[in-house]
Amino acid sequence: MRTIHVIGIGAGDPDQLTLQAVKALKSTDVFFVLDKGEVKSDLVQLRRDILDAHLPEGTYRLAEARDPERDRVAGGSAYSPAVGDWRSARADIYERLIAEELGEDDTGAFLVWGDPALYDSTLGILEEILDRGTVTFSYDVIPGISSVSALVAKHRTGLNRVARPVQITTGRRLAEGLPEGVDDVVVMLDAHQTFRQYADQDIDIYWGAYIGTPDEILVSGPLAETAELIERLRAEARERKGWIMDTYLLRRNPRD
Amino acid sequence: MRTIHVIGIGAGDPDQLTLQAVKALKSTDVFFVLDKGEVKSDLVQLRRDILDAHLPEGTYRLAEARDPERDRVAGGSAYSPAVGDWRSARADIYERLIAEELGEDDTGAFLVWGDPALYDSTLGILEEILDRGTVTFSYDVIPGISSVSALVAKHRTGLNRVARPVQITTGRRLAEGLPEGVDDVVVMLDAHQTFRQYADQDIDIYWGAYIGTPDEILVSGPLAETAELIERLRAEARERKGWIMDTYLLRRNPRD
Repeated sequence: MRTIHVIGIGAGDPDQLTLQAVKALKSTDVFFVLDKGEVKSDLVQLRRDILDAHLPEGTYRLAEARDPERDRVAGGSAYSPAVGDWRSARADIYERLIAEELGEDDTGAFLVWGDPALYDSTLGILEEILDRGTVTFSYDVIPGISSVSALVAKHRTGLNRVARPVQITTGRRLAEGLPEGVDDVVVMLDAHQTFRQYADQDIDIYWGAYIGTPDEILVSGPLAETAELIERLRAEARERKGWIMDTYLLRRNPRD
Repeated sequence: MRTIHVIGIGAGDPDQLTLQAVKALKSTDVFFVLDKGEVKSDLVQLRRDILDAHLPEGTYRLAEARDPERDRVAGGSAYSPAVGDWRSARADIYERLIAEELGEDDTGAFLVWGDPALYDSTLGILEEILDRGTVTFSYDVIPGISSVSALVAKHRTGLNRVARPVQITTGRRLAEGLPEGVDDVVVMLDAHQTFRQYADQDIDIYWGAYIGTPDEILVSGPLAETAELIERLRAEARERKGWIMDTYLLRRNPRD
């Protein structure tokens, strides 16, 4: 029986790997690597560095493929209708990789940035492949440190306030309004700095980009005072590196 | 300058420690251990096992104290007014431990189950102590695998559905109603199986107790079919072990 590990590898700091993830790496024969193209080749390199740090050369194989281009509509990366097609295109590629590159008794692995449970498509795609029934395998999930956890750790703050909830959402949803009944909101996948929309409210932001890597940038403070700074730093970094991964927590202050 | 690490040690599986956490353990002179009393002595033991696995005997010290009893009001563990007093009582203890047990150039550490960012008081307490100004130290936070991440990894599902938000909240808040505008809700600190309140709705539950330990119990399925089973398993386990730590995800199915 083919086995697949879906391994969360943390948010960018190679030391955020868990011992469980290292064990899973060591038990893997074939790593499936999807290249998102030139702009994110830093990330591909970072993944290879992780493998090099823990596995002797020649003890594993890489099976590489080009990631399908997601059909980006205005507003970006988390829009449902386009996601369906893209997910199926990706399932085609994964299905082929598993069938062709993984021997009957081999163990394969997908390395996922952050935690596979948060805004990652790997689990859904594996279920889609199993539903198709053309290739069989068992799989497990190794949780990872999410960019959300890494962000607030760097800012030395919690996600929730005492006895209060926290919501994790997308830039697109934040554009529709702050969620009801929750004053701590983590925003992922925001290509449009949607926080600017709320700069006139009494809200603190804890923002970070490239968290845990040498390029890390952190800014926190009242939105009114930091929104422009973050916008500028973000644009400069994106220009310099060709890509950006950032996350932020919005913390609405109690009204009196 | 005294240094303190606040180290997330994962949800119960010792292999959920990150490499960063192991490094932090190794750089620590004094571990602060608060004993919550007999019923949770399993957890104290599990922490000692983690230390034993990574640190040679005689290379570190334990500074132990008895945790103040939280003034439990009806409904339990996440009620704000009682929390303030309890937090100050705990700050008194931490302040004394840091002042008396940690030399001027020593490094101390608090080991926190899960992730220090989620429903944990350590960061708030350290800030309160710094505000008092009687003892000075610097501190950093090492993120950990939360019970939330561990739960969904075991169930091999994500926290959010595509492009949708997820909310993390408490049993007490869930008792007031399902949050608006979000169909994936993780519930922590629920001493009263509040999920039962929603057993007549089209909601799936992903429940787990003692996740990542040999006592782990997992149940998932439609609430209507699983609520009683979970209630029974939970009561039996709590009776057998004297304590329980459980978490669950409620996933509301789309209305058509």
